Amino acid sequence: MNGKFIVIEGLEGAGKSTAIASIVSHLQAKGIRAETVREPGGTPMAEALRDLVKKQWQEQVSAMTELLLMYASRVQLVDNVIKPALDKGRWVIGDRHDLSSQAYQGGGRQLGSEKLQQLKQLTLGEFKPDLTLYLDIDAEAGLERAKGRGELDRIEQEDLAFFERTRARYQQLVAADPSIVAIDASQPMQQVHKDILRAIEEKLFV
Amino acid sequence: MNGKFIVIEGLEGAGKSTAIASIVSHLQAKGIRAETVREPGGTPMAEALRDLVKKQWQEQVSAMTELLLMYASRVQLVDNVIKPALDKGRWVIGDRHDLSSQAYQGGGRQLGSEKLQQLKQLTLGEFKPDLTLYLDIDAEAGLERAKGRGELDRIEQEDLAFFERTRARYQQLVAADPSIVAIDASQPMQQVHKDILRAIEEKLFV
Ligand SMILES: Nc1ncnc2c1ncn2[C@@H]1O[C@H](COP(=O)(O)OP(=O)(O)OP(=O)(O)O)[C@@H](O)[C@H]1O
Ligand SMILES: Nc1ncnc2c1ncn2[C@@H]1O[C@H](COP(=O)(O)OP(=O)(O)OP(=O)(O)O)[C@@H](O)[C@H]1O
Ligand SMILES: [Mg+2]
Ligand SMILES: [Mg+2]
Repeated sequence: MNGKFIVIEGLEGAGKSTAIASIVSHLQAKGIRAETVREPGGTPMAEALRDLVKKQWQEQVSAMTELLLMYASRVQLVDNVIKPALDKGRWVIGDRHDLSSQAYQGGGRQLGSEKLQQLKQLTLGEFKPDLTLYLDIDAEAGLERAKGRGELDRIEQEDLAFFERTRARYQQLVAADPSIVAIDASQPMQQVHKDILRAIEEKLFV
Repeated sequence: MNGKFIVIEGLEGAGKSTAIASIVSHLQAKGIRAETVREPGGTPMAEALRDLVKKQWQEQVSAMTELLLMYASRVQLVDNVIKPALDKGRWVIGDRHDLSSQAYQGGGRQLGSEKLQQLKQLTLGEFKPDLTLYLDIDAEAGLERAKGRGELDRIEQEDLAFFERTRARYQQLVAADPSIVAIDASQPMQQVHKDILRAIEEKLFV
């Protein structure tokens, strides 16, 4: 039997990393060992691409260049890590996946949803997560939470309007896709994690 | 008035680099200063991508990853170097451009021409060279010529069948596009350069 691929999505500071830790220990208690991966990154080559895309350059980085690098990293991770793990029956928890590109490059960078859909189809075909959980947070509140993490990278340095466009696109995509579960990430952490674990139980264990 | 974008294409060892030197001095004699660029590469970020794509990795590099990196590099170069130069009326001579992806990733890596056309349209839209010169050489003869250059990179280490598929796709694309001029690169260098300069005169100066 194939494993399951669960993806956690949301703006900076939405609570993705802490949610993943909670999911991993919940699954472990059920006897399921889950691998965790992050995007961009997750293989040596994909991590090198992560560095390139997050780094500050003297030159302007085209929105399309950024998008292509996100997909290059994603394909490398899917082909070398995610698909092989699922084929062996292992579960994989992803810190971001395709929805991030749809929201950040499609919405934030305003590349538009049509181009984004085309690139997704071209590169991933029918491959998709078994469950995507979107942690919805106000852009300003998320950035405030994330500040503790240290220096901001090239994308994190965008202005508030960028993250507001990104959130709006996330919300739009989530509303249109019943396979994505939205979680109110402005709640206290315990409640957020409760909602997440309930969604996993409802969607993957019935 | 806009400058002109001339692209030189062909397999390893076809004679692209020596052809470009000859074109640059021919144009200079006519009072035209031409910038030269190469793909993948041509900006600091694109050169970093060139290194990544040519490097040997422990992991398998997916054909699609390779393709996306070629386009990421290309978009970065077109947006930051080629278009601005052409807008200022300068001429640009490119050592490889889009046709290389069509031939190497589409033909050699067998990603197919439909996906390649889609990605081209998605990333470059209607942007294209004013003239593409394809230096046609037998794959074995080209590799033999190129050997002098030192260590082979990840792509150059492919087997002969890869380069034969690449050449076949080049020939197919050139036959289908009357704006590309094919040059018999198996001829003595002087004759090749004569043919190239005549094509430039005929296509760009009448
Ligand atoms: N529901 C919550 N209420 C208050 N604080 C929270 C909540 N969830 C997470 N946090 C805190 O916010 C900060 C950011 O959380 P976390 O690192 O999990 O977010 P993230 O989505 O992974 O961010 P990034 O995109 O930067 O990786 C952490 O200090 C975390 O403890
Ligand atoms: N027509 C020719 N006949 C014989 N030798 C040639 C000819 N054209 C080029 N050469 C030689 O073949 C070698 C490769 O040429 P060149 O470097 O110009 O090819 P290239 O297409 O740029 O190769 P690469 O793809 O490796 O950059 C050089 O030593 C060059 O002098
Ligand atoms: Mg995180
Ligand atoms: Mg050369």
